[in-house]
Amino acid sequence: MEYKNMSHEQLAAEYDAVSKKFASLKEKNLKLDMSRGKPGKEQLDLVSDMLTVLSKPEDCVADGLDVRNYGELTGLPCAKKLFAEILGCRPEECFIGGNASLTLMYDTIAKAYTHGLLHSEKPWSKLDTVKFLCPSPGYDRHFKVTQSFGAELITIPMTAEGPDMDAVEEAVKDPAVKGIWCVPKYSNPDGIIYSQATIERIAHLHPAAPDFIVMWDNAYCIHEFEGEYVPFPDMLSICREAGNPDMVFEYASTSKVTFPGAGVSVMAASTDNLKYMTNLIGMQSISADKVNQLRHVRYLKDKAHTLELMKRHAQILGPKFRAVLDALEREIAPLGIASWKRPKGGYFVSLDTADGLAKRTLALCKEAGVVMTNAGATYPYGADPRDRNIRIAPSLPPVAELEAAIEVFCVCLRLAALEQLLNK
Amino acid sequence: MEYKNMSHEQLAAEYDAVSKKFASLKEKNLKLDMSRGKPGKEQLDLVSDMLTVLSKPEDCVADGLDVRNYGELTGLPCAKKLFAEILGCRPEECFIGGNASLTLMYDTIAKAYTHGLLHSEKPWSKLDTVKFLCPSPGYDRHFKVTQSFGAELITIPMTAEGPDMDAVEEAVKDPAVKGIWCVPKYSNPDGIIYSQATIERIAHLHPAAPDFIVMWDNAYCIHEFEGEYVPFPDMLSICREAGNPDMVFEYASTSKVTFPGAGVSVMAASTDNLKYMTNLIGMQSISADKVNQLRHVRYLKDKAHTLELMKRHAQILGPKFRAVLDALEREIAPLGIASWKRPKGGYFVSLDTADGLAKRTLALCKEAGVVMTNAGATYPYGADPRDRNIRIAPSLPPVAELEAAIEVFCVCLRLAALEQLLNK
Repeated sequence: MEYKNMSHEQLAAEYDAVSKKFASLKEKNLKLDMSRGKPGKEQLDLVSDMLTVLSKPEDCVADGLDVRNYGELTGLPCAKKLFAEILGCRPEECFIGGNASLTLMYDTIAKAYTHGLLHSEKPWSKLDTVKFLCPSPGYDRHFKVTQSFGAELITIPMTAEGPDMDAVEEAVKDPAVKGIWCVPKYSNPDGIIYSQATIERIAHLHPAAPDFIVMWDNAYCIHEFEGEYVPFPDMLSICREAGNPDMVFEYASTSKVTFPGAGVSVMAASTDNLKYMTNLIGMQSISADKVNQLRHVRYLKDKAHTLELMKRHAQILGPKFRAVLDALEREIAPLGIASWKRPKGGYFVSLDTADGLAKRTLALCKEAGVVMTNAGATYPYGADPRDRNIRIAPSLPPVAELEAAIEVFCVCLRLAALEQLLNK
Repeated sequence: MEYKNMSHEQLAAEYDAVSKKFASLKEKNLKLDMSRGKPGKEQLDLVSDMLTVLSKPEDCVADGLDVRNYGELTGLPCAKKLFAEILGCRPEECFIGGNASLTLMYDTIAKAYTHGLLHSEKPWSKLDTVKFLCPSPGYDRHFKVTQSFGAELITIPMTAEGPDMDAVEEAVKDPAVKGIWCVPKYSNPDGIIYSQATIERIAHLHPAAPDFIVMWDNAYCIHEFEGEYVPFPDMLSICREAGNPDMVFEYASTSKVTFPGAGVSVMAASTDNLKYMTNLIGMQSISADKVNQLRHVRYLKDKAHTLELMKRHAQILGPKFRAVLDALEREIAPLGIASWKRPKGGYFVSLDTADGLAKRTLALCKEAGVVMTNAGATYPYGADPRDRNIRIAPSLPPVAELEAAIEVFCVCLRLAALEQLLNK
């Protein structure tokens, strides 16, 4: 029975039962972590052959270059070819970075502040106000990049098709609005795939700011954990066709394909944008690690071969997501105290409690030894206005631990809901 | 006989002879490169075992961490220990970066502009004027980092003991002067080791700017190519003892120890500085590539073992430097048209021609198929006021090619000198 249909006596009885359950879980002294989208050890072991794919000096030559030495600022041609095939863009639109696309994103925003972007009238540091659109719930690290430079973060609601485009189109009329953060496929944390209509509307924006930037973080471009690979359009060509060729910077990496701490990242943008950025990046880098780029090219080979590897990741991740989602269906759905989606890719389950329960639920989890992403983290400034969104990251713990953790979570959510209903 | 003592007739005869020599060298259609401090293939092959030093999942655990996964922003403890031993500082004063110390240096200056340093009153981007001291001849990439942010570059003369400290002490009275670039051991390009007195005077500076920064690029800290390892003092403790603990940031890397494009870099600074910077860097990075950090730790082991490797680099580099220096002694010294030092470490030979000959000499070299670092590159804005400094980088070509290249260089330098003396 849904809690809202229960009598006070029924709720009080339920509260007693759930409290006892909570107390017994606490006694287990658990120490479980569902806080971040970290791959588990089994996934890391999957790609062990990459460690030795380059083992002799003669293995280190590619595209006529000795990849061990200095040079090739924009990356190895064969690495550009691989990423271009995966993203659907052109090799000459790719800049290959180090082990983190976050660093490439930060650098883009940093350069907007210190030097301006290709179409900037002046560096953003010279402006009184810079505003940035943050579809929420979204990725805390994105928001913090722009926040760290002093940008004002504007919350844009998420819909089932991506950011609320009416709100975006209205917001970009303000010339102080300089950009938007997007995770277009399996959005973090909702797992939403932006609809074709949303994508087209983004590409056709007419922002007042000439240097408005779409930060297109395609972090989960090939990261299905259930079902077949879902093709996704190339945002660079869509923006080009919409007459906004320089409005988008796309990012991706192999952090959740090979090794999270030792992967390869890519920034894709119009050749004019890349030429402009490469001139600036030439001051700070001679090139990213090309030995690691070549390791990845030799190991991943091409898109088809990479998708086969992603199927093996899915075999590990699928059961973990199902463990979480099945527990929620079984334990929470009948009570009517939260809602969530059933994503088929990405790294998260996003759950909305009844208003005002997120913080309390996670405080209870912590008390019982289960660490989750902080409540509010998915909103600008870490403040969820309705205190309801919780990001669940099932990838790291083994299934048995995960089942224990999600059991704790369900009990804590029920307890928080009951406390609220009983005004405890 | 020195050219200056020759009669007009002798000079004219010499000019004819050298012109013929130049013409015959041009006919060889050479294509030789002495432009940058790139290690040669033999040096890269030296360290091939590093490619497979981590080959199995169980190899990837260190300090209780799975280095393949996310985390440990400041780097692996074992990597900090290795670099601290090499630099003579404390492990907790080390931040381990990616494949380029240049990127760490750029990031430090970038953060001074966007956020300010620990003792900044405001970010440098909010100031009308920022000036930066550039001991010259020096490293072009250093100068360009500060130039790219709009700093005014102030040339400081180099002496045989390091930067002219009278000039530095005078310059830092200006509160707009925010820092100085230093390559304290085997300076680029002169190969000078800063004297103890110079180092102490730098550490005891009383700059008007509270956030004055000594950019201590210890790029060649263990890079002797002749003779024994020369111990060098730890600048962090010297600054601490001088009451300026937060004034210095030190940088180093394995770019010329293992693979130039795939090494590991370090930034060393006071723990207060590191705490401040780590908070900012946490916005842009989850950690640098820790798999590569561990590869380096396992391969290099400790300072003593690393110095043994450097001896093997020296066996390759020594003959190259001697080939260049011997040719200069033989071909140029008797003519009195240039001077140079005989460094025992680093990657360059720095040569000063008679005033006004550097550009012409290098133009002639280019005509004859020998590429060198651009004339002027060793001075701020690429402009050598006396047009005399030439940086020779002997590390990349095999000895036979190098001998051919330096032969061309000597002929071009003679021709340029004769043109000048004969007003051609």
